[in-house]
Amino acid sequence: MYELGSARIRKGKKHVAQEDSGGGTGGQQGTSMSLEDLRGFRILLTCAQVVGGILVLLVAIWTISYRGGFAWRSNPGLEFNWHPLLMTIGMIYLYGNGILMYRTLRNMRKRSLKITHASVLFAAFALSSIGIIAAFDSHNLADPPKPNLYTLHSWFGIITFTGFTLQWVGGLVTFLYPGLASHIRAAALPVHMYFGLVLFIMACTSAVLGLAEKAIWTLGAQYASYVNEGLLMNQIGLLIFLFAFIVIYLVTHLPYKRQPRPEDENLLTGLSD
Amino acid sequence: MYELGSARIRKGKKHVAQEDSGGGTGGQQGTSMSLEDLRGFRILLTCAQVVGGILVLLVAIWTISYRGGFAWRSNPGLEFNWHPLLMTIGMIYLYGNGILMYRTLRNMRKRSLKITHASVLFAAFALSSIGIIAAFDSHNLADPPKPNLYTLHSWFGIITFTGFTLQWVGGLVTFLYPGLASHIRAAALPVHMYFGLVLFIMACTSAVLGLAEKAIWTLGAQYASYVNEGLLMNQIGLLIFLFAFIVIYLVTHLPYKRQPRPEDENLLTGLSD
Repeated sequence: MYELGSARIRKGKKHVAQEDSGGGTGGQQGTSMSLEDLRGFRILLTCAQVVGGILVLLVAIWTISYRGGFAWRSNPGLEFNWHPLLMTIGMIYLYGNGILMYRTLRNMRKRSLKITHASVLFAAFALSSIGIIAAFDSHNLADPPKPNLYTLHSWFGIITFTGFTLQWVGGLVTFLYPGLASHIRAAALPVHMYFGLVLFIMACTSAVLGLAEKAIWTLGAQYASYVNEGLLMNQIGLLIFLFAFIVIYLVTHLPYKRQPRPEDENLLTGLSD
Repeated sequence: MYELGSARIRKGKKHVAQEDSGGGTGGQQGTSMSLEDLRGFRILLTCAQVVGGILVLLVAIWTISYRGGFAWRSNPGLEFNWHPLLMTIGMIYLYGNGILMYRTLRNMRKRSLKITHASVLFAAFALSSIGIIAAFDSHNLADPPKPNLYTLHSWFGIITFTGFTLQWVGGLVTFLYPGLASHIRAAALPVHMYFGLVLFIMACTSAVLGLAEKAIWTLGAQYASYVNEGLLMNQIGLLIFLFAFIVIYLVTHLPYKRQPRPEDENLLTGLSD
């Protein structure tokens, strides 16, 4: 998974990759002849998209049908509903798809791929920021105001969002603009990938913590009567992790790794990545 | 991470491993010359043990000092306290250490290593079973009895424990006794490793879900006043994931992977693994 500093020889099935002469493509040192083996990739990717789509749909159904839909500061109670919807779209669905991009857009040029990866994750950041404002507003504008940042969900959430933001800025500066020297990029990539996955797991954990806390507060004793809303919230929680584990498999299964393309190699101009 | 079916060439620092002739050591195909690079391993392992130790200690302090200590069926309210303590020891600390065993006991013979791995995980299973009985008892023996399995924590927990049990039995049958043919073991190993990590993350998520639910139920409005017990419970939740992420790094960072030892190779007798 994080074996980015090694060369590999593999008997694969498809996509004979060119010899990799290192550089910024992930810290490969020395020479390698790597082959991609994409068996099972498409079906798993389809599963991820179906599960992710159903997940977002169920959160929308929950917030609209059970929680009264949306408002902004005129009604802090309804403003809150933006929080679970936007965080699910931003920090689960878009985050997962942003991570997957080096698998899904494997034939895109490296630089365009990086820009797309950064853009999708910026969209995740933007939607999540609005979602976080909605959560704070729903506390601060309530009558009387409610305290902030005392639950496990809020601690996990703030740490995750801060880490995600630092990771995005760090990724931009290191890999895209201005872009650091190739040996620094090579050393930073495994760190970027490790924390990318750690923060994604943290995001999913934050999400289910939020669901659990909300279910107890809003449903109270009804939760113990297996009411539909409680069952729906529990199912949403399981779907978040089903989505996450398919995404994690797709990005950690090395035969699915995008191998360097001929057009990535542009050592003279340094524009290759 | 799951690139077990490939040969690797690596410039390493230590532990020049012997040529791997495949078999049941993890599905390596063809030849490889692999080197272990253990820089940073000991310090990270120490961190994992310190964090794991503090975690168990804090759960003990919480259950004893804040929740009144332990009883069995004579007092279902206190019987419950075995649940967080035993689940933390079993499904977090022992589970994490069981996963780590192929890194920590890297010079042990392969067969002894497998038996130790299975034994530690059986201990995790046994302690967790008692912990789960304590949780059900605290509901069923309460006056009036409380419903079971309606919260997100309980759903995650039951799925995780069922998966963990199936994984243990599957691992025993496949790799240890009776032990299946070497090509089946080789094919099963990446599946065993993937689900081992997935279920470990699920266990950690179940644990923080339990903490979050318990904090709201027992502390109520006090939770919002940043009382010591609430802060302690939140800190326990963060430590669980700190422990998990160090363990996950240690087991997924490929240079830390135990390479086959000369004594593993015993193709004639088939006892090598």
